[in-house]
Amino acid sequence: MKAITVKPGKVGVEIKDIELKQIKNKIKVRTISTGICGTDREIVYNELNFVKPEEGDYLILGHEALGIIEESIENSIFKEGDLVVPMVRRPGNCKLCKIGRQDYCLDGNFIEAGIRGKNGFMCEYFYEDEKYLVKINKSIQEYAVLVEPLKNVMKIVEVFNFLKNRVSWECDDSTYSCKGAWIFGTGPEGILISLVFKSLGLITTIVNRHPLPTNILDFLDINGIEFFNSSSDDWSKKLKDYPMDVAIDAAGTTEIFNQIIEHINNNGIIILFGTKGSGSIEKGEFITKIVDKNLSIAGSEDGSKLHYIQASNYLENYAPKQNIKNLITGIYKPEDIWILKEKPKDEIKSIIKWS
Amino acid sequence: MKAITVKPGKVGVEIKDIELKQIKNKIKVRTISTGICGTDREIVYNELNFVKPEEGDYLILGHEALGIIEESIENSIFKEGDLVVPMVRRPGNCKLCKIGRQDYCLDGNFIEAGIRGKNGFMCEYFYEDEKYLVKINKSIQEYAVLVEPLKNVMKIVEVFNFLKNRVSWECDDSTYSCKGAWIFGTGPEGILISLVFKSLGLITTIVNRHPLPTNILDFLDINGIEFFNSSSDDWSKKLKDYPMDVAIDAAGTTEIFNQIIEHINNNGIIILFGTKGSGSIEKGEFITKIVDKNLSIAGSEDGSKLHYIQASNYLENYAPKQNIKNLITGIYKPEDIWILKEKPKDEIKSIIKWS
Amino acid sequence: MKAITVKPGKVGVEIKDIELKQIKNKIKVRTISTGICGTDREIVYNELNFVKPEEGDYLILGHEALGIIEESIENSIFKEGDLVVPMVRRPGNCKLCKIGRQDYCLDGNFIEAGIRGKNGFMCEYFYEDEKYLVKINKSIQEYAVLVEPLKNVMKIVEVFNFLKNRVSWECDDSTYSCKGAWIFGTGPEGILISLVFKSLGLITTIVNRHPLPTNILDFLDINGIEFFNSSSDDWSKKLKDYPMDVAIDAAGTTEIFNQIIEHINNNGIIILFGTKGSGSIEKGEFITKIVDKNLSIAGSEDGSKLHYIQASNYLENYAPKQNIKNLITGIYKPEDIWILKEKPKDEIKSIIKWS
Amino acid sequence: MKAITVKPGKVGVEIKDIELKQIKNKIKVRTISTGICGTDREIVYNELNFVKPEEGDYLILGHEALGIIEESIENSIFKEGDLVVPMVRRPGNCKLCKIGRQDYCLDGNFIEAGIRGKNGFMCEYFYEDEKYLVKINKSIQEYAVLVEPLKNVMKIVEVFNFLKNRVSWECDDSTYSCKGAWIFGTGPEGILISLVFKSLGLITTIVNRHPLPTNILDFLDINGIEFFNSSSDDWSKKLKDYPMDVAIDAAGTTEIFNQIIEHINNNGIIILFGTKGSGSIEKGEFITKIVDKNLSIAGSEDGSKLHYIQASNYLENYAPKQNIKNLITGIYKPEDIWILKEKPKDEIKSIIKWS
Repeated sequence: MKAITVKPGKVGVEIKDIELKQIKNKIKVRTISTGICGTDREIVYNELNFVKPEEGDYLILGHEALGIIEESIENSIFKEGDLVVPMVRRPGNCKLCKIGRQDYCLDGNFIEAGIRGKNGFMCEYFYEDEKYLVKINKSIQEYAVLVEPLKNVMKIVEVFNFLKNRVSWECDDSTYSCKGAWIFGTGPEGILISLVFKSLGLITTIVNRHPLPTNILDFLDINGIEFFNSSSDDWSKKLKDYPMDVAIDAAGTTEIFNQIIEHINNNGIIILFGTKGSGSIEKGEFITKIVDKNLSIAGSEDGSKLHYIQASNYLENYAPKQNIKNLITGIYKPEDIWILKEKPKDEIKSIIKWS
Repeated sequence: MKAITVKPGKVGVEIKDIELKQIKNKIKVRTISTGICGTDREIVYNELNFVKPEEGDYLILGHEALGIIEESIENSIFKEGDLVVPMVRRPGNCKLCKIGRQDYCLDGNFIEAGIRGKNGFMCEYFYEDEKYLVKINKSIQEYAVLVEPLKNVMKIVEVFNFLKNRVSWECDDSTYSCKGAWIFGTGPEGILISLVFKSLGLITTIVNRHPLPTNILDFLDINGIEFFNSSSDDWSKKLKDYPMDVAIDAAGTTEIFNQIIEHINNNGIIILFGTKGSGSIEKGEFITKIVDKNLSIAGSEDGSKLHYIQASNYLENYAPKQNIKNLITGIYKPEDIWILKEKPKDEIKSIIKWS
Repeated sequence: MKAITVKPGKVGVEIKDIELKQIKNKIKVRTISTGICGTDREIVYNELNFVKPEEGDYLILGHEALGIIEESIENSIFKEGDLVVPMVRRPGNCKLCKIGRQDYCLDGNFIEAGIRGKNGFMCEYFYEDEKYLVKINKSIQEYAVLVEPLKNVMKIVEVFNFLKNRVSWECDDSTYSCKGAWIFGTGPEGILISLVFKSLGLITTIVNRHPLPTNILDFLDINGIEFFNSSSDDWSKKLKDYPMDVAIDAAGTTEIFNQIIEHINNNGIIILFGTKGSGSIEKGEFITKIVDKNLSIAGSEDGSKLHYIQASNYLENYAPKQNIKNLITGIYKPEDIWILKEKPKDEIKSIIKWS
Repeated sequence: MKAITVKPGKVGVEIKDIELKQIKNKIKVRTISTGICGTDREIVYNELNFVKPEEGDYLILGHEALGIIEESIENSIFKEGDLVVPMVRRPGNCKLCKIGRQDYCLDGNFIEAGIRGKNGFMCEYFYEDEKYLVKINKSIQEYAVLVEPLKNVMKIVEVFNFLKNRVSWECDDSTYSCKGAWIFGTGPEGILISLVFKSLGLITTIVNRHPLPTNILDFLDINGIEFFNSSSDDWSKKLKDYPMDVAIDAAGTTEIFNQIIEHINNNGIIILFGTKGSGSIEKGEFITKIVDKNLSIAGSEDGSKLHYIQASNYLENYAPKQNIKNLITGIYKPEDIWILKEKPKDEIKSIIKWS
């Protein structure tokens, strides 16, 4: 079969022919589509130091996938023809891994498909343990490849729901209608976070330091999400009608961290998800502000199986009204491996169609 | 009466003679002792931009106090001779202030005795609304002036108890015995935080970048608290036996923030209380680490009336075994106003005796 | 205008002609439809001892309503033509009422439209304070009258989400897929609770001691909800595939309480919402079982404005797939006041159309 | 050695001579004292249907114990001469047992020393796995046998601290000073619960339907706990100054459950610990009250290792002022086995001294 592979430790990506051995008690899944994310391109450019092959010297790329059961096993809850999304991270042996929360792994001894120690899904078929497959309703086949990136958002919501109980956080009338969420970063994760916080009932603003292309602006507009250009727009003017009570960062720069600490309201909640950047914090008063504003800040990585299910459930019910299929801005063939090296203009999410 | 006063906006401190008018429905309290903290000295040196007089151009200094009821009012729960600690912060009109949580004030419209908009307690007597007085058991008279700084620690414990429920945080046997707390800063707040976390059952380490004087080392030793000199000791060696799962900063420098983010374990809890510093974070990877380690970080300021009561309760029950009176390293007269300008060597807590 | 009224303290219901005075700073709402619930019929039969008129000796009935803004006020967020659902309970002066949680009122000093101390919505128009109106999307006009009963379910979900954190409650893989919810009572509240818990991902079973009519069975079937007839079906057989980890009672009899305590799993969560019944608990072992199973039990009454918004949001997104309009089994004219005295066979929700 | 044994399934208790084999990797503990609780007497009278021998047909009785390490093992944290309290319940294989919370065991597959499937501690020495031993400070040697019953109270506090966050529960000034706890039952558990809730800062009332002996009244008086005789005192008069916001039952009768539901305030918290009784609830309106008052009710059984440590910590710090040693009303010899059949008048806690 065709598979898109990298050599950990080296720059580059290739498409090659590989056969996988049938594995006992594992389900054979035929890949329908795989999504491309920033991590994939960072792997191709050898920018991540934790990438590892499953065996040999190559790794099949790809952790965002939708597949269809081709051969199931005895007594499985899955049958041929079922749609499934495979999970990325597989548990180790720590206390949290044992209770299904490898997203909170204590010791780092987990593996991740397409990233560290396990082949990914950019190939025509794969064998999978049934406990790492999440069943998908056929009604969302067109965009179910978004379940994997959306599961990160569902964990962010879990963290938000937790942190807001630190102190009586709601408006005087018990609602969130006076409360605003600001999301930093307009990639697929930033947009999905905005969508979900908007549907929770918060005044929702998304931020980039560059203007956005029309297709993204239109998508935001349909969904009632405000855009703020942090290079050219006026912070204090915008904050009057779009308060910052929650800030979620999907970009990862310290410049944004500084902006958040500066502008967020007292008792504010900050959730950090993006990890791209390095940089320096110029003025050190951010600690005083974290204290004086009683801020709550949480890093949030990955998500658990519960969050995959919640993501799938969200797409089933919310996607029809939200034009979510417009988030998929390009559909490619496995042979188009250049797409793993180069981000198309106006890309939100590019996917590869396998069958 | 004698009162120690400052002129907000100007450097300096003086002792002067002031008479207070009797105020209807307020209780007359005679001051027994007042504690001196870093904030007092920062006010004297005009380093804080939010200091404001109650009326006129001067402010009576002092927010850590113990007093005795001299004249009560009708139907009060207080009677002559009762010991009391007055609260520092008084509520404004926001939702949190209305429910007694002015320590989480949303809009900043509160006043603070001895700091902003209200005279403090470095004077021979004062008039006080009974709802801002906390009754104190006579058994702790000797060190009840510590109730005010200790109430901050009780709020930190509230925040810790909240954050640890983000994820199943305890050791495999349900206890905290494998979990370590690191406290940064060896002033009175840092020492009190260490004491309280030690009594919660965590392996407790306190950190300074300088060696400590013998009196502090002895106090820590008696109470089973480990000392770590961050300039000379070996981090990785120490962390093996003294893990960092909770880190509480009472110093306020970004250098410490960097050290915490670097060394804390996955799912770690960081509580920031110190606000002194300014500085710069050199390497921007701290955001990636906050995300990858799923850290929870909270600023924690002040405390509520509940925390004053808990502080008093803690002193009643824990102080006898902990040699807490040794934290008071100097007892001064009101006339010794130099003590407000200069920190004695080996000071932990200096107090002024009024009656 | 036409209004359906009762005389508190007397059996009976009538339709009469009433004019309401315009009230300054209140919004005029024209009623579109009102739902009929068990409470309305209990009021008509004078079975509730807390019913009180707003003024005079009569009370306009009706607390489940959908209306349209006919005349707004200056600077309102509402404009003519907006759809709205009015809230039932209005706050008193206790701490919880002050923070928008009159559903948790401490002292009972609240009023409720159509029930105690305030006219309801079974009339052609009414005047309302804008803060008690909830904006409704036109896409759900057909069944938005269900927002009021559904808001009770949203509070139940809030209580469930709270109680499940008492102990690590999820399945070993972090999901709810091994966990079952049993809902007792097949009236509109019972059915709505079942729908919502099904969409949370629990194995969901609804219980009655009588067989159900075909229309309800069909509705449950479409939505994947299992039916259990507690008079004729075999408990232990059913419990093998449909475990009871959460039980929600919408019926209010002690017989059901006994059945729940008997059959629910360890660490089970019980939420009581129904209040109809009186009865006796024959065997007193229910206390031992509550203790030995570490059960958590909560009464849950009413809901806050947040829950009205969540209910409206739920209908917008989930109703299209769930055939929710089939819950409305009868549409009547204001003149059909017999419907307030008599429950039609196969009724799920009867509504009165006003305009 | 001497051991006090029962034959599960038969009435009776005897003292007999038994030798225990040394077990590899287990620590040899010499028993200092064992406490007698209601469960022990119920076992002797064969009133509990779950009692099981460890092997053969007899069971060594006793689950409340204090011992001293006689022979430790290599690399143990324990050394000869250390005082220890052994844990009662040992984990099975469910998810909760795996994370050290066998007190929340899901499937009932645990064992309990002196009760089900494991010999207890009423004998001269025993062998124990070090992970089920809790280290005890010598300063509390005199009453450390109370650690086991007190650990149940620490779990009750954990449950209380959890449930009070369902809704903003504190008084308007953030404290508990307007909130009252009522504890039903004046046995050792009831008294220990009262002590701990009093030290949390609640107005605390303990209830029995009989007058109390002088020794108990004196103990309560010293500790500021109010007594209420439910047969002769006036409920509504007492409730004015001693409100019921939390109710904890250590008796287990439905009569008490009825009284609590009737008298507790809105948003009240009820924790059920006692399991003795059977009975009938006459009037079925308790369900309506649970709903209308938004009550939270939790069964609470046993405690985890964390709670043993907290109990030991509590005794170290609180016991000196509380005259806790007065709770031990009788010290007996192993030969006094009549004490296991007969409760002495004025008993609070009887203990057997072994060495």
